[in-house]
Amino acid sequence: MNGFDLSADVALGALASMHGEQSPEAARERYAIAVWCQLIEPGDSVAGRIIAARGPVAGLEAVLAGGPLPEVTARELAEARKRWLPRLSARAVAASLATAAARGVALVTRSDPSWPGQLDDLGPHAPLCLWVRGDVRALRRFEASVAIVGARAASRYGDHVAMELAADLASEGIAVVSGGAYGIDGAAHRATLATGGLTAALLAGGADRSYPAGHTQLIDDIAQSGIIASEVPCGSAPTKWRFLQRNRLIAALSAATVVVEAGWRSGSLNTAGHAAALSRPLGAVPGPITSATSAGTHRLIREYGAQCITSADDVRELLGLTPRTDAVTGVDAGRTGEATRVQDAMSTRSWRESTDIARRAGMAADAVEAILGLLRLDGSVETGAEGWRLRTAAG
Amino acid sequence: MNGFDLSADVALGALASMHGEQSPEAARERYAIAVWCQLIEPGDSVAGRIIAARGPVAGLEAVLAGGPLPEVTARELAEARKRWLPRLSARAVAASLATAAARGVALVTRSDPSWPGQLDDLGPHAPLCLWVRGDVRALRRFEASVAIVGARAASRYGDHVAMELAADLASEGIAVVSGGAYGIDGAAHRATLATGGLTAALLAGGADRSYPAGHTQLIDDIAQSGIIASEVPCGSAPTKWRFLQRNRLIAALSAATVVVEAGWRSGSLNTAGHAAALSRPLGAVPGPITSATSAGTHRLIREYGAQCITSADDVRELLGLTPRTDAVTGVDAGRTGEATRVQDAMSTRSWRESTDIARRAGMAADAVEAILGLLRLDGSVETGAEGWRLRTAAG
Repeated sequence: MNGFDLSADVALGALASMHGEQSPEAARERYAIAVWCQLIEPGDSVAGRIIAARGPVAGLEAVLAGGPLPEVTARELAEARKRWLPRLSARAVAASLATAAARGVALVTRSDPSWPGQLDDLGPHAPLCLWVRGDVRALRRFEASVAIVGARAASRYGDHVAMELAADLASEGIAVVSGGAYGIDGAAHRATLATGGLTAALLAGGADRSYPAGHTQLIDDIAQSGIIASEVPCGSAPTKWRFLQRNRLIAALSAATVVVEAGWRSGSLNTAGHAAALSRPLGAVPGPITSATSAGTHRLIREYGAQCITSADDVRELLGLTPRTDAVTGVDAGRTGEATRVQDAMSTRSWRESTDIARRAGMAADAVEAILGLLRLDGSVETGAEGWRLRTAAG
Repeated sequence: MNGFDLSADVALGALASMHGEQSPEAARERYAIAVWCQLIEPGDSVAGRIIAARGPVAGLEAVLAGGPLPEVTARELAEARKRWLPRLSARAVAASLATAAARGVALVTRSDPSWPGQLDDLGPHAPLCLWVRGDVRALRRFEASVAIVGARAASRYGDHVAMELAADLASEGIAVVSGGAYGIDGAAHRATLATGGLTAALLAGGADRSYPAGHTQLIDDIAQSGIIASEVPCGSAPTKWRFLQRNRLIAALSAATVVVEAGWRSGSLNTAGHAAALSRPLGAVPGPITSATSAGTHRLIREYGAQCITSADDVRELLGLTPRTDAVTGVDAGRTGEATRVQDAMSTRSWRESTDIARRAGMAADAVEAILGLLRLDGSVETGAEGWRLRTAAG
């Protein structure tokens, strides 16, 4: 048992007092999760299945006892034990908990009322817990949030767009999730804070560490009113693996992901892939085709069906919300009226020539033909040898 | 008969000699079409149906004779005669033919071998003829052409993109159609000429008139190696109606339409609507969402399913051609190899965990998960409670 006793460890008392546990069982479970965090890397589905089958305490005891476990294959368990057991150290767990206590980092688990249940959509890859700086109760407010992510080496255009989108959405009470990085992430966080909105930065390293170092002040500011969270324990370094796994948390915590700028190899495409794997809506902001930092977003639009995002209203639509804009401007206003007149002049039963429709609508035939073309694109009308007619809802 | 005699008009001889007619019947038909051009406005489907039923000569005689015509309703015919007959003037026809002869403008009809048959996809709205400056034989080379159109008040970005796309496509032998206007149209024509490619400018006014005036030299240059064409006779002014109808010719002459820049109310959206009405592929170039001249192209992408065009290769794909680029660069190269490895490690029958797939592929699980997300977006793989599997072609 490597000198480990889940019921007697010295850190248990400290942890219980820090979280005001109601019962020794709850404290033991939380401590077992802290131990698991020390053993595994994010997204370890072998651990996920053992814990799903047995809970964190019995699962850990079973792994330490060394016998076979039916929920995983013998080979998986043998490989996992090889990964996990060298990391088993009561001292390391105690150190991470002491750092957490010192830096005000809470350990939030699935048993906590503030647990954001949408993370469980990750199944066996779901995080066991979140280490959180800030007001943990705010975690529940991310169910209808939007992730705004993108290139670290963003252009001024990208920074501008990220700030405009975040400020607009945040001012409407939509929480903004990002990764705390330079570039798009930082712009989204800053604009959200500036408008008094709620933002969460999900970090790849421990929640006690400010990474990147140049964002120490920003991360402290976010913790003041929002959330700094990580699934790895305090003291953990941000590795490449943890960055990529952190991306799945960004996609899973938010209701939709918007990529503002991304190069061909941007990590944001990884976040987009996770959003897609979770069937969460995915949006991408277009930009100049001459800009390398928009190559990735155009690829998402072209090849992966990401919605083309041109405004905060488009993001609201992605989230399933009604666009805020009341005053429809430009061609939309014109089109609404004109399209209505054209459709009023049409029939679902009879085919009519465009000139006939123009006459009935009292409109110029040129305008009618263009509107018919556009109405056909959106499936409202159809054309045949004898002209045009309205499509029925069933058609 | 308003002093009109189709067999004896003085213009008939001149027209016959100009076109080297083989027979008096052919000369009479061509002359009748010249008369029709004088009577109607572009896209007049009542004329289209009469001529489809009777041919231009008998159709014109029947209209002049004044009796009922079964192919159109009495009301349609009465209204059409009211529109047409005030314009009936042998002198005007002779003048338009004289101008055509003086300016080297040929009258190309459906009976001519150089007639671009794709225009007939417009049905009763198809043009009766084209008045053409340039080498009429080149008309047939527009079957696989691309229309590159957009805002007159283009940005430097739009001008740049139009030139890059046109130059790249034209250098590969793809003909470029546009409207001869300032902005995107002019950039597309100029770049095509500069690379020795073939271009056609479809004008809203007569082919003898250089409109806009500032493009007189450009239009002359196009006529040198390419095509200046219009469906209205020489001497006709470019009216708003004729501009919009000209747009349908741009969409119908080319195999695909690409809008480079367009404002909310741009005439290019009208061209796009015509392309859609003809079921021709439609592409739109994205740009900064902060640019008013890209608002229309984003709308085409968001609302009307236009393909997002980021390169000449994307246009080739729109045309159904194989992209020229041999050297796949950036993430594509990486992804092709990695995606293949991931798919090789998967099964169509068994569900596998991503960690299992990563082990079989000998790849890092983080890379595998991101690739699985993207492969799911393009429908190659599917995910369930037990992991991932390849989708079959039928699935």
